[in-house]
Amino acid sequence: MSEVREIAARARQAAIALASTSTDQRNRALLVMAHSLASRQEEILAANEQDMSDARAQGTAPALLDRLELSPQRLKAISEALKSLSVLPDPIGEVISGSRLANGIWLQQVRVPMGVVAMIYEARPNVTADAAALCVKTGNAVILRGGSLAVNSNLAITRVLASAAANAGLPEACIQSVSSTDREAAEELMGLHGMIDVLIPRGGAGLIRSVVDNARVPVIETGVGNCHVYVHEKADPQMAKRIVINAKCQRPGVCNAAESLLVDEAVHESVLPPILKALEEQGVTIHADDKTRALGAVMRVNPATEEDWATEYLDLKISVKVVSGLDEAIHHVNTYGTKHSEAIVTEDYSAAVRFLNEVDAAAVYVNASTRFTDGGEFGLGAEIGISTQKLHARGPMGLTALTTTKYVAMGSGQIRE
Amino acid sequence: MSEVREIAARARQAAIALASTSTDQRNRALLVMAHSLASRQEEILAANEQDMSDARAQGTAPALLDRLELSPQRLKAISEALKSLSVLPDPIGEVISGSRLANGIWLQQVRVPMGVVAMIYEARPNVTADAAALCVKTGNAVILRGGSLAVNSNLAITRVLASAAANAGLPEACIQSVSSTDREAAEELMGLHGMIDVLIPRGGAGLIRSVVDNARVPVIETGVGNCHVYVHEKADPQMAKRIVINAKCQRPGVCNAAESLLVDEAVHESVLPPILKALEEQGVTIHADDKTRALGAVMRVNPATEEDWATEYLDLKISVKVVSGLDEAIHHVNTYGTKHSEAIVTEDYSAAVRFLNEVDAAAVYVNASTRFTDGGEFGLGAEIGISTQKLHARGPMGLTALTTTKYVAMGSGQIRE
Repeated sequence: MSEVREIAARARQAAIALASTSTDQRNRALLVMAHSLASRQEEILAANEQDMSDARAQGTAPALLDRLELSPQRLKAISEALKSLSVLPDPIGEVISGSRLANGIWLQQVRVPMGVVAMIYEARPNVTADAAALCVKTGNAVILRGGSLAVNSNLAITRVLASAAANAGLPEACIQSVSSTDREAAEELMGLHGMIDVLIPRGGAGLIRSVVDNARVPVIETGVGNCHVYVHEKADPQMAKRIVINAKCQRPGVCNAAESLLVDEAVHESVLPPILKALEEQGVTIHADDKTRALGAVMRVNPATEEDWATEYLDLKISVKVVSGLDEAIHHVNTYGTKHSEAIVTEDYSAAVRFLNEVDAAAVYVNASTRFTDGGEFGLGAEIGISTQKLHARGPMGLTALTTTKYVAMGSGQIRE
Repeated sequence: MSEVREIAARARQAAIALASTSTDQRNRALLVMAHSLASRQEEILAANEQDMSDARAQGTAPALLDRLELSPQRLKAISEALKSLSVLPDPIGEVISGSRLANGIWLQQVRVPMGVVAMIYEARPNVTADAAALCVKTGNAVILRGGSLAVNSNLAITRVLASAAANAGLPEACIQSVSSTDREAAEELMGLHGMIDVLIPRGGAGLIRSVVDNARVPVIETGVGNCHVYVHEKADPQMAKRIVINAKCQRPGVCNAAESLLVDEAVHESVLPPILKALEEQGVTIHADDKTRALGAVMRVNPATEEDWATEYLDLKISVKVVSGLDEAIHHVNTYGTKHSEAIVTEDYSAAVRFLNEVDAAAVYVNASTRFTDGGEFGLGAEIGISTQKLHARGPMGLTALTTTKYVAMGSGQIRE
């Protein structure tokens, strides 16, 4: 049997045992896991140093090296996150609905763990600990498959956390990492229909696409965000500028940052120049349509191509388009957006309501920055990721996204007539 | 552009328009649709007669011909089902949760339509009307792809219902059927990532497998049920016999019928013979392990193979196995079951609780027939199908299974610090 299949078979057995654990047992395991990150930090840091020196030898970019690097401080932050998770309410066991059927059967729909959760992700080793902890919290066995750059760090973290979970009385196989980082192992994982209950890819658009193309197991797509801010003709120009700058510049590398600006033709000559100047001051490269460029508001404006409208830059870049009005704006957003987060700036009630109803996205905003789409901001406690699909979970996912339900029927000999 | 892509593009536009319709509009449309099935019944019956004569010419089996055939009575029953749907509560627009965030943003999570729903199914033309109506009720555009045997019936029903929906003010493209019944069209539909929000296959195990293998769009797997009844050593023997006979024989061709019987070794010599005799009287063919066959209780017992344990017969056939106790029973069910419906018969409290906790299935039963897993029996009003996956919906699916949610955020200029 291949490594991946062996891991999946062990995970399935662990999942059955986990389904009978109590909230207290799982919370205690999280505390033991948090403690182990400190007590065995040398082992983890040594593995990370191996990854760092391999990455440096390969000429890895400094930004990526920074995301790969672990330190006592960073391990402490991860450990604290595990402790915080242990005090969150447990979604498992919630009785969602229940009734006594006419025939006397006592029927309840209860929240239960998914079973086996797989995650495929890229470089950052903190995701390994984070994902393992979220799955322990929700009673799921997890199969982790991180990027090749962090393989030693990931395996060390997995070893430490799995043994801590075992010390706390959970099955050791509740946390496992796939050691082979080749494409074949990832594709084998994606194909394990019936053995994996959900696969969550966390990473860039390329990773997500590869999972969508190859998976035979249920998938939750996350995190690709081509988000728009639409400045309606009835917008407060000062508010519009503030929201555009915040949505684009406050943290340009994340999925809820704005990538595109739409402005109503009726007001573009007055509203757009100050926004363009402010963007330029923030170092944002502008890709704009002809009407925007004709304004001559700023020094350098690149012509926008069809590709720009569909691009998630994740960078200090923005596409800008003048639209004829609400209809064109909604149509543009629904055509090029990725159904993540979309905002209108307006003081017009009916325009706001139409935008909220007709734009198809996980989160729709009136007069606020797209940057608020986040589990923490929305008050979910922990965040698994941001779903951009409609099945199962949409938008920021809290712990319940890692659960499913089960109908429990207690009878006294009922048969169907 | 191919037929399938054109249909999908029209469905996407229709979905946006549908998202702004009111409950009243959609319920009115259902009544107009119900009426049109009567007023245009000749057109539908003529198309169906074409399918019937083609099917007869191909030597189609009588059971299949019966499922294909429409009559004024059957159309009336479909029409009545549409009327019943119009009076069910509308899940769309429900505010699931909401709060004023600390920064003043008024955040609500609201229930909205999925958008574009696709269904791939086999022969019965009533599924066409049923699926169309469920999607109109929930504000979704639907793309239907039925089996080749019923193609004329399906296209006629689609034409009639779409024009009725248009007369009631909904976009005509809210109900569309794919006319090409070749494999390529189905596979193209399964591949339309980003254009179809959910694909629901309704049919046999082969269809489900083909969808799982080929789909790039989110899928809800339905309806494959290798269901077990486990007779525990502390079972009431009379109740055990009644439940086994009901679960196997009351309607053997459906997914919640039992396919396999497990009996504890400690009681098999006394409990099993009367059950086997009763099964034989009902005309059930028995495939059993050596211990069962050694009982010599009935005339003909076939030896059970590994394949039998994993088979959903959908027929008057059952596999029978003697198990050493609860552990082996749970392990067997979790190994060979399809996570649909599983039952234990016992008077032992702890055995019952362990079975409910440790068996991984959409519905788990103590002392009741597996046949109750059904939207009607569970009080859901309408049933879309029975999900055997854990993502999004599990077990009998009501109208909410065709919905998703959207975060609606109303601000007053908030930006993220």
